Amino acid sequence: MKILCTRENLLYGVQVVHRAVSSKPNQPILSGILLNTKNNRLYLSATDLELGINCSIPVQVVEEGSAVLPAKIFSEIVRRLPDTMIDLELIPGTKTLTVNYNSSQISINGMHPEEFPVIPEIDNNLNLILKAAVFKNMVKQVSFSTAVDENRPIFTGILVVVENDTLKMIATDTHRLAYRTGIIDSSITSSWQSIIPAKALIEVSRLIQEENESLQIILTDNQVLFRFGDISLITRLIEGQFPNYKQVIPASCKTKIRIPTKALLEAVERASLLAREGSNVIKIKTQGNTLIITSSSQDLGKVYEEIDIEIQGEETQIAFNSRYLIDVLKVIDSEEILMELTGSLSPGVLRPVETSNYLYLILPVRLN
Amino acid sequence: MKILCTRENLLYGVQVVHRAVSSKPNQPILSGILLNTKNNRLYLSATDLELGINCSIPVQVVEEGSAVLPAKIFSEIVRRLPDTMIDLELIPGTKTLTVNYNSSQISINGMHPEEFPVIPEIDNNLNLILKAAVFKNMVKQVSFSTAVDENRPIFTGILVVVENDTLKMIATDTHRLAYRTGIIDSSITSSWQSIIPAKALIEVSRLIQEENESLQIILTDNQVLFRFGDISLITRLIEGQFPNYKQVIPASCKTKIRIPTKALLEAVERASLLAREGSNVIKIKTQGNTLIITSSSQDLGKVYEEIDIEIQGEETQIAFNSRYLIDVLKVIDSEEILMELTGSLSPGVLRPVETSNYLYLILPVRLN
Repeated sequence: MKILCTRENLLYGVQVVHRAVSSKPNQPILSGILLNTKNNRLYLSATDLELGINCSIPVQVVEEGSAVLPAKIFSEIVRRLPDTMIDLELIPGTKTLTVNYNSSQISINGMHPEEFPVIPEIDNNLNLILKAAVFKNMVKQVSFSTAVDENRPIFTGILVVVENDTLKMIATDTHRLAYRTGIIDSSITSSWQSIIPAKALIEVSRLIQEENESLQIILTDNQVLFRFGDISLITRLIEGQFPNYKQVIPASCKTKIRIPTKALLEAVERASLLAREGSNVIKIKTQGNTLIITSSSQDLGKVYEEIDIEIQGEETQIAFNSRYLIDVLKVIDSEEILMELTGSLSPGVLRPVETSNYLYLILPVRLN
Repeated sequence: MKILCTRENLLYGVQVVHRAVSSKPNQPILSGILLNTKNNRLYLSATDLELGINCSIPVQVVEEGSAVLPAKIFSEIVRRLPDTMIDLELIPGTKTLTVNYNSSQISINGMHPEEFPVIPEIDNNLNLILKAAVFKNMVKQVSFSTAVDENRPIFTGILVVVENDTLKMIATDTHRLAYRTGIIDSSITSSWQSIIPAKALIEVSRLIQEENESLQIILTDNQVLFRFGDISLITRLIEGQFPNYKQVIPASCKTKIRIPTKALLEAVERASLLAREGSNVIKIKTQGNTLIITSSSQDLGKVYEEIDIEIQGEETQIAFNSRYLIDVLKVIDSEEILMELTGSLSPGVLRPVETSNYLYLILPVRLN
């Protein structure tokens, strides 16, 4: 293998696929990045066997071939190369790649391309296209509600549902649930649903550079492929039964409150500073057109906040874990929100005022 | 105590003095910030008993008084206050301070001002003034050469020498030594020298906002006071005998090399990537008007770098710990540097080409 490329393109490709390399690979070959030439492009690949990323960059191929290089040291080297044309050459009969620039040369000990796991081809089962910007916003608004506990794998994933021209994402850690719908650009006749690891959806979100571009999603029974720009990302699905989210969402409420989002976020953030001792519990109470937020800490002190609101229905009060409120108020794209409550023991529901594509449900904290 | 002030001024004062609060205070009172009103200013103070910082901000004093508040929670609260006029009031007969804004109120449990250690007054012994920008640059160019090992306290300090109109700073960790001189604006008749904790000098550097302003330094036998803008910082001195730096600096050399600083830094950084196994050792060799930098790692690979240089004297080669070279090349303000060598066993000396106010000495690594 011998290719010429710019440092900029090489760095881009290496940084994209590097995200699929595990920090603790369970086989040495998985610490590597596979390089492969084809049609004057260099294809870079990496995988941790659950998530695989491919990326291609334009190069001048002098001699076709393939190589596997240790991802960490290779990306550190490429990052520090001068901004000039780079010549990559595999020394024939060895696993050593030389990186040549100006009059200097770095030799990197590589691995056998034959040992690198094949990232599976996927059959074009269900194929949908949506705007990358819509996808990014959906992931932002639901992914924070997943659990990090690896012992309950389904809660580390996001339930993705395809129905006609609508994509739905639902995430829950059993304390709160986020639900977001988005419009698919290409029409679909069949329906599909599965639990996709949140990590994979977040990676796709991060790797999308051009928000104007289209994202293609190919769905199968056990894997999903995302394709955008020069990048493709494939991930396994999570097996298991996702909770019935439709059953959890209340159909009605006794109190509906309209609250300025930013004022509520800032008040809850201040209240949370003095709520740490008591597992972040803050109290919310209506009093006419005023919302009163309080918290207290034996050691530190207490907070009393007032916010002007509009209210329909009964006066009420409830207690929440402030973290669950802060999380959603940071990602909700609406100047005002609706908070729907039914007493202090039923879940609260938050919705943006301006759109009906988002809903967030949060369980209250029972106070003694 | 009752005062009115802007959130912006209060935040500034709290953040300045917070830097003197230890993360693990050995007395509860040292986790606090002392507030004191005087002449329509609020004086904020904090100390860890080695380093003390004072800062004053303009306020409207409704009632004089003093209070001590836990630094961490107080600064988190002030950071999150809305950008409006803030009313601080000590509840009479208690240690509780209320923070009032809009219709909201936070109460913070404080401590007794009487328990707060008095930050000592300093007699105007030796008093000098220099440009804050000069001081900042001096600290930047020497402080990285101090040791972090608390078992050898003198090497965690910077030797500061005042002689006539010159201030000198010298730092060493016994592997390398940085030496910088700067001009004092006010003339001094006596001389003074002592070891100042690097931490204190770095704090002064960080807290200097206006590089155009003047810095006043007041020197005594056991403490130093720095005064600039609304801030004063006082620190104890480090006791002990600093090594005789004059003895260490070679008077002559056999090889003098002129090298572009940026090219050398980048080459050494790349070489260091493959030098980690062997305690960061990189080799430097002259070959006519070329400097050759090499490193190698059994596992990872090897680096060969060429740089165009001008050379006077003998051809030579030497090995260095790359970290010691990278540190200095990042802070040297000169497009080219002079490297002065005398064989592979004597220390190397680096100087900027453009000024004689800086020198950096680095011990070679002996190769077997």
